[in-house]
Amino acid sequence: MEITSDRQGIERALQWASKGMFTTSPNPRVGCVIVKDGQVIGEGHTQPPGQAHAEVQALNDAARRGADVRGATVYVTLEPCSHFGRTPPCADALVRAGVARVVAAVADPNPLVAGQGLEKLRAAGIDVTCGVLEEDARDMNIGFMSRMRSGKPWIRMKAAASLDGKTALHNGHSQWITSSAARDDGHWWRARACTVLTGIGTVLADDPQLNVRAIETPRQPRRIVIDSQLQISPQARILEGGGTWVVAAHGDPEKEARLRERGAEVIVLPNAHGKVDLPALMLELGRRQVNEVHVEAGFRLNGSLIREGCVDELLLYLAPSLLGDAQGLFDLPALASLDGRKTLSYHEVKQIGPDLRILARFI
Amino acid sequence: MEITSDRQGIERALQWASKGMFTTSPNPRVGCVIVKDGQVIGEGHTQPPGQAHAEVQALNDAARRGADVRGATVYVTLEPCSHFGRTPPCADALVRAGVARVVAAVADPNPLVAGQGLEKLRAAGIDVTCGVLEEDARDMNIGFMSRMRSGKPWIRMKAAASLDGKTALHNGHSQWITSSAARDDGHWWRARACTVLTGIGTVLADDPQLNVRAIETPRQPRRIVIDSQLQISPQARILEGGGTWVVAAHGDPEKEARLRERGAEVIVLPNAHGKVDLPALMLELGRRQVNEVHVEAGFRLNGSLIREGCVDELLLYLAPSLLGDAQGLFDLPALASLDGRKTLSYHEVKQIGPDLRILARFI
Repeated sequence: MEITSDRQGIERALQWASKGMFTTSPNPRVGCVIVKDGQVIGEGHTQPPGQAHAEVQALNDAARRGADVRGATVYVTLEPCSHFGRTPPCADALVRAGVARVVAAVADPNPLVAGQGLEKLRAAGIDVTCGVLEEDARDMNIGFMSRMRSGKPWIRMKAAASLDGKTALHNGHSQWITSSAARDDGHWWRARACTVLTGIGTVLADDPQLNVRAIETPRQPRRIVIDSQLQISPQARILEGGGTWVVAAHGDPEKEARLRERGAEVIVLPNAHGKVDLPALMLELGRRQVNEVHVEAGFRLNGSLIREGCVDELLLYLAPSLLGDAQGLFDLPALASLDGRKTLSYHEVKQIGPDLRILARFI
Repeated sequence: MEITSDRQGIERALQWASKGMFTTSPNPRVGCVIVKDGQVIGEGHTQPPGQAHAEVQALNDAARRGADVRGATVYVTLEPCSHFGRTPPCADALVRAGVARVVAAVADPNPLVAGQGLEKLRAAGIDVTCGVLEEDARDMNIGFMSRMRSGKPWIRMKAAASLDGKTALHNGHSQWITSSAARDDGHWWRARACTVLTGIGTVLADDPQLNVRAIETPRQPRRIVIDSQLQISPQARILEGGGTWVVAAHGDPEKEARLRERGAEVIVLPNAHGKVDLPALMLELGRRQVNEVHVEAGFRLNGSLIREGCVDELLLYLAPSLLGDAQGLFDLPALASLDGRKTLSYHEVKQIGPDLRILARFI
């Protein structure tokens, strides 16, 4: 395949980046394509944490092919890093390799990089361009970008409803409002998240595993249960496999010990009302290097998260059906004026099987 | 423009048909394009009732251009008529003109035509093809098709809601949930309908005109008010301009006389429960040659129409906002099982300004 424009080069690099969708966190998903005389001579993507970044993968690929990267153009979906983390700086590797030009889709918001990677390249006489398919590149690492910018992960709330906005019958029946195609698609979104978050209400009602089953992934996202009163049973399926974080408003050494035996960790984060402090939790998750949070909760926790400004994006599957008098989507208070509504903007709308998938962002 | 395929010919004929979107009812909207040696030599569309049909318009257009239609191919979006209605049969006109080939998008379901138009052409030695872009052609005249097939118009229910399925605050505020772009788009759908139907609840609450204002139309759709108890005031704005049908469950000679003075007609159609018999009304509207009914009603009448199987299609504008605890879309009863849900299928989804427009059909 010939690369004849910067856009094409970055498009291909983004395809490579997406290969790391389920595996790179807490690092960003990055793809890199090295082009010389219009021909791809090396490409790769970020490996799991501690292993090679995309640029090094692509340089190694070129070496394996016996290609000479001197004078080549490097397309990379994120500004090359300039600092020593778990691996040495990629910018240095590119300088050493003698490439002529680097095209980055977007600058790295990481304060440890933040333009210094590009600066290092320029200082070495490399021609640098930044800002090609920038929005796509930003979306690829929306959680990493959010964490670097605000200290908080990107919080995506998944919900499934009928066209009249109902998520369950009053008797609790909700299996299934949406199609198996939509439910499988939902597992792809779980898989890309660092954590899947739910509430004790859902755990008590459905005892879900909330792991990824419908698609293949080498890494299961960590599960989080918001459980103010520590009501969770040590037998809950969401604890299976270990690593679950249970977030409570009150400590309870005995219960905590039983949960620890199941591989769980209890995080105590009360607010003034004796509930879990959700905004504080999001900052804590940021500190714990969580990039993307995937929320699958019920009416009440969904409402609390939205009310407390803890949701960045809705991932809403709308089935083409009407349920009538039934459970609504989000527990939000009655308004006196439309001025009080929560506003979003549509980011993407797509038909998945017979259902509609709507991605909308709070503004 | 050169026409090199049947598909292209019908596409162009459909563009012509759409010029009659607001004016041909109760006749179907039909477009016709005459092609010879790949060149368009005549084209036209159905004129208002009593005036020329598309085929005759196109033949006249060719004559005006001095073009010889003998041996030409005629693309027409609906089977040419074979009967004497307000105008003579188009099939006869095409035979007389000596065209070589007729390509029709869809057969006419009108029992007075129903294949006889195509048969008449074939009998005259004309090469006939039927079924090119058939679904598009059917949609163009979805109301006419429905009326010919079932005796009932096509009933399209328009609603506007937030993403959580709410149409108004509990205090009644609903102006405006959707954008002006979406509201203007709604007027296009009003304009193409033969009638705009609402309920007395909406009339008493909002006193709407329910005419077409946001776009130009040479013809206003007739308005219909479902008003079981004849509560409407003779001063209601929906009566302005005359021609409104008020549908009641009980006659009242005095009130009826006052409404007649305002140019309205009262139709009395009770069911066994002392309400308006909605399915019987739809058959009556079919008898009155109504092709498309555009419903803009409130929670309760919307619910009744859906429950009684009187809705074919939802035209739902979804604003990217959340209203929380507020008025839902349709008054439908609580279900004991998901088996009882009303099911639809998505026909078209489009972004209109910041809002989403969803066209979904009941199945």
